[in-house]
Amino acid sequence: MSEKPDFLTLETVDAALTRLCELWRPEPRQELLDTAWAEGRVLAEAVTSPADLPAFTRSAMDGFAVRAADTLGASPSVPAYLALVEAVTIGEIPRAAVGPGQAAPISTGAMLPPGADAVVMIEHTQPLGEGEIEVFSAVAPGEHCIQIGEDARGGELLLESGHRIRAQDIGALLAAGRTRIPARVRPTVGIVATGDELVEPAGEPRLGQVRDINTYILAAMLREAGARPVALGISRDDPQELLALARRGLESCDLLLLVAGSSVSARDHTHRVVAALGSPGVLVHGLAVKPGKPTILGLCQGKPVIGLPGNPVSAFLVAHRVVLPLLARQWMGTQGIAASVPAVLTASIASSTGREDLVPVRLSRGEGGFRAEPIFGKSNLISTLSRADGVVEVPLNLNGYTKGTAVRVTLLSGGGGS
Amino acid sequence: MSEKPDFLTLETVDAALTRLCELWRPEPRQELLDTAWAEGRVLAEAVTSPADLPAFTRSAMDGFAVRAADTLGASPSVPAYLALVEAVTIGEIPRAAVGPGQAAPISTGAMLPPGADAVVMIEHTQPLGEGEIEVFSAVAPGEHCIQIGEDARGGELLLESGHRIRAQDIGALLAAGRTRIPARVRPTVGIVATGDELVEPAGEPRLGQVRDINTYILAAMLREAGARPVALGISRDDPQELLALARRGLESCDLLLLVAGSSVSARDHTHRVVAALGSPGVLVHGLAVKPGKPTILGLCQGKPVIGLPGNPVSAFLVAHRVVLPLLARQWMGTQGIAASVPAVLTASIASSTGREDLVPVRLSRGEGGFRAEPIFGKSNLISTLSRADGVVEVPLNLNGYTKGTAVRVTLLSGGGGS
Repeated sequence: MSEKPDFLTLETVDAALTRLCELWRPEPRQELLDTAWAEGRVLAEAVTSPADLPAFTRSAMDGFAVRAADTLGASPSVPAYLALVEAVTIGEIPRAAVGPGQAAPISTGAMLPPGADAVVMIEHTQPLGEGEIEVFSAVAPGEHCIQIGEDARGGELLLESGHRIRAQDIGALLAAGRTRIPARVRPTVGIVATGDELVEPAGEPRLGQVRDINTYILAAMLREAGARPVALGISRDDPQELLALARRGLESCDLLLLVAGSSVSARDHTHRVVAALGSPGVLVHGLAVKPGKPTILGLCQGKPVIGLPGNPVSAFLVAHRVVLPLLARQWMGTQGIAASVPAVLTASIASSTGREDLVPVRLSRGEGGFRAEPIFGKSNLISTLSRADGVVEVPLNLNGYTKGTAVRVTLLSGGGGS
Repeated sequence: MSEKPDFLTLETVDAALTRLCELWRPEPRQELLDTAWAEGRVLAEAVTSPADLPAFTRSAMDGFAVRAADTLGASPSVPAYLALVEAVTIGEIPRAAVGPGQAAPISTGAMLPPGADAVVMIEHTQPLGEGEIEVFSAVAPGEHCIQIGEDARGGELLLESGHRIRAQDIGALLAAGRTRIPARVRPTVGIVATGDELVEPAGEPRLGQVRDINTYILAAMLREAGARPVALGISRDDPQELLALARRGLESCDLLLLVAGSSVSARDHTHRVVAALGSPGVLVHGLAVKPGKPTILGLCQGKPVIGLPGNPVSAFLVAHRVVLPLLARQWMGTQGIAASVPAVLTASIASSTGREDLVPVRLSRGEGGFRAEPIFGKSNLISTLSRADGVVEVPLNLNGYTKGTAVRVTLLSGGGGS
């Protein structure tokens, strides 16, 4: 009656994901995007710099543009004396050259005047009046300057194909004048909920019915991950109706999620529908993860079809562990840096060797860091979900964690924030 | 010539933020939102459950609805024998009651029939044929059931005012039938870039000019943080023009960012403009943080006005350390759980006691975890930005970290992903 031996025959999440990723190699279409608004989108091609960046030698400091040779040996006790020429106006081509023994006042970011090859920081100088300065520190040629092409050479790779654009990348692209970029279209993910007991959230459930929430939790998770969710509707516990909805979804979507009904027969339907949608059909039926054991991974007509458990907590955790990583690896170009925080467990977590456990936890601040309180409430309680800030993953080879263990808590969607 | 003594007289970031937060207590307007699309938004009021949830006692398992008393003492060697009555149809009100000595087949999520007070898991039973089952395990009253109101009582608090909505919260709200929620409007953040050398990114800079990228980096960061950025344009290095732009911005925005020009005079203008915008004006001029020393924090007409350094790397890091946390604390309702990963430094970082250092790092996977490579390139190089996955913060009281130290890397915008 223990689940333990059973779990040993199931496929691990990592092995199942790897297998599906080997078979599913999507080739997303491209679209041209306004770079300034492209955060979260994925480059469809490598982007190179169209020209040298910067296009002119710039000062990296406030001070004086000089010929480095004129400062040779300068020190506070033996300063160099330089004659001032016209100051450089930022944003313009300097009008005056800097000759031997001369210095031009210059701001950070301004173009170096002809003749000058270095900048002396203003802190290392002193005005003498009468158009002359003392320089207390020698500079080498090129010092405190940004050379032409130092940021990027014309033709140099700025960002690789498949890179997910972050705020800082928008800066690098715009600096190079790449105001439009080729991006992968967002993956469209269809969601079908099944269950005779389900009504739309706006409806008023009769006794015995409940509102479908899985569709909307999954949709929000998918949007946050950069995908385009499509709610395909609720299917009754009828294999023909489910198959028809799934067929329609598979035509228009890149990936299909079938959220199982909670009745036994509804769960059986999901398996048969995935098998009927196209070959190879069901790849994995049963994962060595708790919750999530009844998860189905399939590939039909070249598209992943994933059967999620109907229990909202399970559907949420499996989506977090299986669906989002699948999209991240094969479409979204994320490097798999899961955001997490360190925390100390306030209670022990029991697990079994041979399966991984996903345990929702609530975070609170304790002395010296975060405390993670495992949420053990009945997993079909919806309040369990909303109390969860993150997940502790107990790996396959451990029997659990004892109270007080320092663990890493993977943050759940939106759990972050500055 | 060392900066060290200087830094000791500057205000720490934490003290400056606390001071500004004491003075700035925004009272955001509300708007009614569709719950299903509300991820990332902030509740303007506490939300309670309008009714008991669930509204009926549900089975938490597949099995048989029974009277617990009938299973008393049941075991594999001494099973209880129960007569089957009509199975419960999920989503409907059960038609048949369960009398003494009877059991009704029931699915997870189905309504408990009258008379039954517990559920026996199917794994703990065996059919006998002829409408009878053996039960091998005793259940207590209420076992494997979710009681009326167990998830939430009518009137019970679901989420507090100021809570930032996550995918899982959407589920909890919809389960309770809260399809619309009162949310705080997004904060509008105006951005003014200054500098005679700046042109719009779509323009073709002449020699001496560069493209404004700070506006667009900051805008993307703000969008990701849930704010509504407004690009107010580029101001010449002219205090009147800057003041006019800033005045206009302050009228229409909740917070104003003035990105200093890189010339000395432009930086001076920012300070004078903040002072002229309204009292109390400049609160903090100079932060004990590198980069970011010249940062200005002000409050004008009840709204924060922040002068950021013009160097893109500095502006980015200060926005990450000052602007986003300010919005998070006072508007966005985030709990300050910064997403981070543990990593080992591949090079030493030098710092000075009395200031904190923000060092951008590039993450790579090494044996046993992440490696963080500090990016020491000239901080005005734009490529520095794009190489950065995260930031290592060297606190005020440390002289730096040596190579090989285990540090926490705070992930930069979009650095996460599953």
